[in-house]
Amino acid sequence: MQPAEFRRQAHLLADWIADYLEGSERYPVLSQVRPGAIRAQLPAAPPATGETMEAIWEDFQRILMPGLTHWNHPAFFAYFSISASPPGVLAEFLSAALNQQAMLWRTSPAATELEQVTLSWLRDLIGLPQPFEGVIYDTASISTLHALAAARERLGRDIRVRGLSGQPPITVYCSQDAHSSVDKAVLLLGLGHDWLRKIPIDESFRMRPDLLQEAIDRDRAAGCLPMAVVATAGTTSTSSVDPIPAVADIVRREGLWLHVDAAYAGPAAICPEYRWIVEGAERADSLTLNPHKWLFVPFDLSVLYVRDLHTLKAAFSLIPEYLRTEEETLNLMDTGIQLGRRFRSLKLWFIMRSYGVEGLQAMIRQACQLARHFARRVEEHPHFELLAPVPLSLVCFRACPPGVVDLDTLNEELMRTLNTSGEAFLSHTRLDGKLALRLAVGHMSTRRQHIDRVFELLEGYLAARGNSGSHSTQQRSLSQ
Amino acid sequence: MQPAEFRRQAHLLADWIADYLEGSERYPVLSQVRPGAIRAQLPAAPPATGETMEAIWEDFQRILMPGLTHWNHPAFFAYFSISASPPGVLAEFLSAALNQQAMLWRTSPAATELEQVTLSWLRDLIGLPQPFEGVIYDTASISTLHALAAARERLGRDIRVRGLSGQPPITVYCSQDAHSSVDKAVLLLGLGHDWLRKIPIDESFRMRPDLLQEAIDRDRAAGCLPMAVVATAGTTSTSSVDPIPAVADIVRREGLWLHVDAAYAGPAAICPEYRWIVEGAERADSLTLNPHKWLFVPFDLSVLYVRDLHTLKAAFSLIPEYLRTEEETLNLMDTGIQLGRRFRSLKLWFIMRSYGVEGLQAMIRQACQLARHFARRVEEHPHFELLAPVPLSLVCFRACPPGVVDLDTLNEELMRTLNTSGEAFLSHTRLDGKLALRLAVGHMSTRRQHIDRVFELLEGYLAARGNSGSHSTQQRSLSQ
Repeated sequence: MQPAEFRRQAHLLADWIADYLEGSERYPVLSQVRPGAIRAQLPAAPPATGETMEAIWEDFQRILMPGLTHWNHPAFFAYFSISASPPGVLAEFLSAALNQQAMLWRTSPAATELEQVTLSWLRDLIGLPQPFEGVIYDTASISTLHALAAARERLGRDIRVRGLSGQPPITVYCSQDAHSSVDKAVLLLGLGHDWLRKIPIDESFRMRPDLLQEAIDRDRAAGCLPMAVVATAGTTSTSSVDPIPAVADIVRREGLWLHVDAAYAGPAAICPEYRWIVEGAERADSLTLNPHKWLFVPFDLSVLYVRDLHTLKAAFSLIPEYLRTEEETLNLMDTGIQLGRRFRSLKLWFIMRSYGVEGLQAMIRQACQLARHFARRVEEHPHFELLAPVPLSLVCFRACPPGVVDLDTLNEELMRTLNTSGEAFLSHTRLDGKLALRLAVGHMSTRRQHIDRVFELLEGYLAARGNSGSHSTQQRSLSQ
Repeated sequence: MQPAEFRRQAHLLADWIADYLEGSERYPVLSQVRPGAIRAQLPAAPPATGETMEAIWEDFQRILMPGLTHWNHPAFFAYFSISASPPGVLAEFLSAALNQQAMLWRTSPAATELEQVTLSWLRDLIGLPQPFEGVIYDTASISTLHALAAARERLGRDIRVRGLSGQPPITVYCSQDAHSSVDKAVLLLGLGHDWLRKIPIDESFRMRPDLLQEAIDRDRAAGCLPMAVVATAGTTSTSSVDPIPAVADIVRREGLWLHVDAAYAGPAAICPEYRWIVEGAERADSLTLNPHKWLFVPFDLSVLYVRDLHTLKAAFSLIPEYLRTEEETLNLMDTGIQLGRRFRSLKLWFIMRSYGVEGLQAMIRQACQLARHFARRVEEHPHFELLAPVPLSLVCFRACPPGVVDLDTLNEELMRTLNTSGEAFLSHTRLDGKLALRLAVGHMSTRRQHIDRVFELLEGYLAARGNSGSHSTQQRSLSQ
């Protein structure tokens, strides 16, 4: 592709993207294609000779566009709702062209130092104290993995060098509702899933510190080596926040590592009224939060803060000859498993400056307000109910019309009907054995009409089936 | 940022990037700033209220630009030279706006299926047989980690569930010149660095199969459990290619896992004359190669091929309720530690179509030709010598003028002088105890004049110091 052609195509794309960001609502949120449909339309081999961007673009529009689920859409309410904000999109465009690879300070002084600066800004905004330093990774799965790897090294048994063979079973603790990334980290680190203790939760879905203490005591008595506790600030199921101060008391007394998983809810702590989310985290050893979840940063950008960056480097640093340099400064490669590091801080910097702290706070507050608005409508309607508290921007609820025996199947059907409509996208979870619908607010363009529309559609579906409607739901149960 | 403002800024940026891609040569390749210089110019806190893109852009130009090392520059010859090609940059811009997160098929059918399609294209191009299936990760460090995690699970000891406590020491084998990512994977997996066997290399820097066999025998006799061998196709130090067929014979006989690290050199196998690089890999269990290294894809995009995708899923799959779906199809989250997956296949697709197979082959051949041209100049000059064979696009060499005792210091000085000039960027390695300069060709815009210029600059520096110049080199030795 010649320079003039790149310029022409970049301008065409700039207009297409500007239209998309302004009008993603015209697409169905959840892709309506069948499995295999995209693949079937693509050839079995790449072309022998180059094609024009027009040909590629035409296939993108015709084949791939119908296969997109529109995460960057104001009616995306599934999982956690995220936003690729306009300044973040510009930064990614720039970052792709600059192609920085910040493994060493010298291979990108700007990416290395801007990462330190933006992460100290963010640390101060959420109220973590100074000794904490941050590192940017791709996902919270990787952040949590690194936190637990550092915890394993800090056991002082030189596991990095000697390995786990010959060590006693090493135990990790989290709540029943902790994210699956904790499970995956425990598997990968070789600790064994059997040694991950899922601590029961209270009626508000928060880890029970008394049962955490009991589990640690039991493991010590059995000859295990307790290593770390993962407390969640904003669980995926319900956005519940574990009682971090009480957990921190136990962790300190027991000499364990405390990791706080604030992947989703952490960004909300930049608002003083939500600072309570990370209360107690100042006594943790590490905390992760995802600016790509709720700080309007295009995916991916996860942050891990550690109280002592040396523990992380002790677990990972290795310097082969071809990477030896003269400069005495932080080389990002020493902070983790990935040698290569993208220039991710650029988008965080663009976004923090473009919106300012007050702009970011306003968007977070708006999401919480919209969630509370939806929760009120649920509470006020006789045929709907909340299934969990709504501390932040996630609502767990279900329809519960009188006379329906199988509410799980009914709600599954409502969700499927809504998602198939393309007007909005919800996901689900299971709470106390009940299927709960999850409405996660978080896209920066979501407004009250989008929220109201979801409620009215669900209400309409329910009315259309008649208030009871129990027999058809039993026929279509997913569990059959 | 309002839609009209985004549009305006996107067009401004499109022009800036077009200029940059056309003229990155006007910047010094290696950043000339001092450690801390970028950080010192940035404020201690983000702004309270939003700023204009003009203000952000001005700071980018003034503060960050001098802190960039220009990887996307035709005279970047350090480490491995990479390219963010124009179609790849367009794809990343588009990908950022679409903000796909392909953890589940349904959350991005297009990203999930395009990944399968582009990776089957690439698999066929490098001659890997059909049972191999690919997964895209961010970096080769993560690809290799996943390969070894799958190998650990295939030991059949249910390590995922039970952990490594109580297991015998588990050993992994690679050559002395294997990449540090193998070391890091072994650390992270809890196997212990002590149990990674670095097999000595022959005079061409290739793993010695006879010594591999001896090491396995010794470990078995000592009660260890040999698990996997990592063979490298294109080492970082010299681009040497381990004798994969002979290694595969041993691995098969011993019942181990064979992983081939072709991160850098793998893409060259799309040229029939370089297919020998991966000869024997068809008998491997896994192979990694990095399209972001030598297939003109903006960083990051690494590919792992595995003979049996189920082994990878067996090591990682975990499905919490909130991620359960009806579709029976591949969900990318089941293939690794990272739950979230970016739409990385889009850039690979844009690039493979835009250049076509022949276009990609031509760029790879050109890099190899330029490397051979440089190697010839080295060989023909009485005061320079090659320190390793040049099978691909990497030249390891040094100046060796008569009468200089400390050649390491001399060459270190030459490299520092060249890098400080900003005209080109070389890195180094150590071969048989000697400091070797590394010239890695790989940027798509590198032409003969860039290569010749490096040689002439080095020649000039050498001439300027007088042919011997031994005393000043001894004064400035880095090792003192």
